[in-house]
Amino acid sequence: MKVNGRHYRTIWYDDAAAVVEIIDQTELPHALVIRALRSVDDAAEAIRVMRVRGAPLIGATAAWGLALAMRRGAQDDDLDRAVDVLAATRPTAINLQWALRTVADRLRPLAVDDRAPEAARLAAALCDEDVAINAAIGAHGSELIERLWRAKSAAQEPLHVLTHCNAGWLATVDWGTALAPIYRAHDAGIPLHVWVDETRPRNQGAALTAWELAAHGVPHDVIVDNAGGHLMQHGRVDLVITGTDRTAANGDVCNKIGTYLKALAAHDTGVPFYVALPGPTIDWSIDDGLRDIPIEERDAAEVTHVSGMLADGEVADVRVTPAGVTARNFAFDVTPARLVSGLITERGVCAASREGLLALYPERRGVS
Amino acid sequence: MKVNGRHYRTIWYDDAAAVVEIIDQTELPHALVIRALRSVDDAAEAIRVMRVRGAPLIGATAAWGLALAMRRGAQDDDLDRAVDVLAATRPTAINLQWALRTVADRLRPLAVDDRAPEAARLAAALCDEDVAINAAIGAHGSELIERLWRAKSAAQEPLHVLTHCNAGWLATVDWGTALAPIYRAHDAGIPLHVWVDETRPRNQGAALTAWELAAHGVPHDVIVDNAGGHLMQHGRVDLVITGTDRTAANGDVCNKIGTYLKALAAHDTGVPFYVALPGPTIDWSIDDGLRDIPIEERDAAEVTHVSGMLADGEVADVRVTPAGVTARNFAFDVTPARLVSGLITERGVCAASREGLLALYPERRGVS
Repeated sequence: MKVNGRHYRTIWYDDAAAVVEIIDQTELPHALVIRALRSVDDAAEAIRVMRVRGAPLIGATAAWGLALAMRRGAQDDDLDRAVDVLAATRPTAINLQWALRTVADRLRPLAVDDRAPEAARLAAALCDEDVAINAAIGAHGSELIERLWRAKSAAQEPLHVLTHCNAGWLATVDWGTALAPIYRAHDAGIPLHVWVDETRPRNQGAALTAWELAAHGVPHDVIVDNAGGHLMQHGRVDLVITGTDRTAANGDVCNKIGTYLKALAAHDTGVPFYVALPGPTIDWSIDDGLRDIPIEERDAAEVTHVSGMLADGEVADVRVTPAGVTARNFAFDVTPARLVSGLITERGVCAASREGLLALYPERRGVS
Repeated sequence: MKVNGRHYRTIWYDDAAAVVEIIDQTELPHALVIRALRSVDDAAEAIRVMRVRGAPLIGATAAWGLALAMRRGAQDDDLDRAVDVLAATRPTAINLQWALRTVADRLRPLAVDDRAPEAARLAAALCDEDVAINAAIGAHGSELIERLWRAKSAAQEPLHVLTHCNAGWLATVDWGTALAPIYRAHDAGIPLHVWVDETRPRNQGAALTAWELAAHGVPHDVIVDNAGGHLMQHGRVDLVITGTDRTAANGDVCNKIGTYLKALAAHDTGVPFYVALPGPTIDWSIDDGLRDIPIEERDAAEVTHVSGMLADGEVADVRVTPAGVTARNFAFDVTPARLVSGLITERGVCAASREGLLALYPERRGVS
């Protein structure tokens, strides 16, 4: 999408410099910093410290990480080591594992000399495929928004959509997942207003989603994660759309911590709650997300400290808690399928259930 | 309760200096600052900028504010003006209105010269009464904790209690409401561990509840407000206790924004959800909290900016959002009675319903 009038993706290959470049999202929203990745270790570091985040973008970065590794050495050992380094960065990210497996499986049968150019071709293709998938999610989701808007338009006020975390173009290669329908509907002239959950502890909503929406001109307000239930109780939310890091085959979705609480409020107040996802993030091997999806626990300092800009323009961390306090930092939660109104995929919208998903992905029927 | 081995209340009259003194809670958890209140305007400012907060302490501060006003002038006009100044500080705080009415009604029949000493006597008595009420809440609530502990003790791990915001002794004159049962049970030797919601946007949990619990030696961990649902889904919360700023006669509770979301999660996962409250915060005139309790909206800067301590020890605000972003800041939400397992009052524990409350407060039967 556009920043200062120029179109960006979140990751691209710079032919002149012969490096992979990314938007360093740890610098947002205060500065737009482009960072070069020159090695598999650069790519792994970028994923681990969340210079890139969001399931699809993590997958794309991992693919480019393999391509960078193959340039330095493309023996089987090199490939295995690169896969291991990248796979260890984010345990919950199913997309990461999928991208690594997809690229590695295509490289292994090739002659060693052919692996580096093929890896780069595959990484670029995977990026293009992500963009196409997200554009399709946007098209299907915007039909849903249009239907809700037609039912509401007499109210003479915008359609209010609440979103949690950042499942925008910054979380993908372009377009986003949860935000793709919003961009598409906004561009089609439907008056939208987005409630942006700040999304503690890392504030991806306050920092990234607000930045994206402002850059694209979509009206929005940032709220604390505590506020969504109150807004829904008072009829001030017409639709919730979130992303998901991993979707179980039964429709349970594992997304940023706090998603479950918003789903409960939507269910309690009759607000439609949709989850947007690319097919590759479905984990067909898991039939009970709550029981079987492991939840990453991250550094407690993300809870006790908050990063932002001081009045003098410097970016700094402040400690909110008393000195020496202990904290725990669970990164994701699982929203049971029973609370999800529907899943928005690149192939259409379906019920959050095994049957719903199989209707869109019939090739998975009978496959474990 | 104790700080560095010395017993404090949150507000007291200093005879030697002839001023009211408070712990300035805007300085916590980084510094313990005692501030003198010399006038009704000092008292109103302390309430408005939340140097004092929590329903009971706001009421006590308002009473002392009237006493300070009467020292300077005790005509009817002076009394009316003082009541108006104090009443305007926090629209949602029923306790504030109750304390002002109680004191003003007792002063009005008196001769002008008698009003100042009587106002001081009433304010001191109101503080003592708050301490007695909270001690009684602690006693009733700790019986509940003991019962849950007896049912769990075979598990060989502490009883996990989740709380939201700060309804500890810092929110009252002493003991607290939601935390009073926890202090009492902890002192009685029941092994407790408290999950402390950080409570955005003002972080009263991360800053104040964590500070209190550490000072008293109660094991605890700070979590983001998004995390409680996940913990409850996985059996890691045995009990939720929160406070309430205002309780409707039907048992609906109006408490810090986000309480409703935790109540939904507790209901969905079968975790007992109790609300601790002093009788004076019951608003007998309201029978539908969701419809009839007005929700204060506060400065958006509380959402966009976070206060904390820099690495060099300076306390500063950082802006989390992009420059120019808009935000909304709803301070409270209403948790419907159907989600509340019970109310813990100074007279005992009751169902969250009109009948439940009337059984404990029979003098209100037939009174509007």
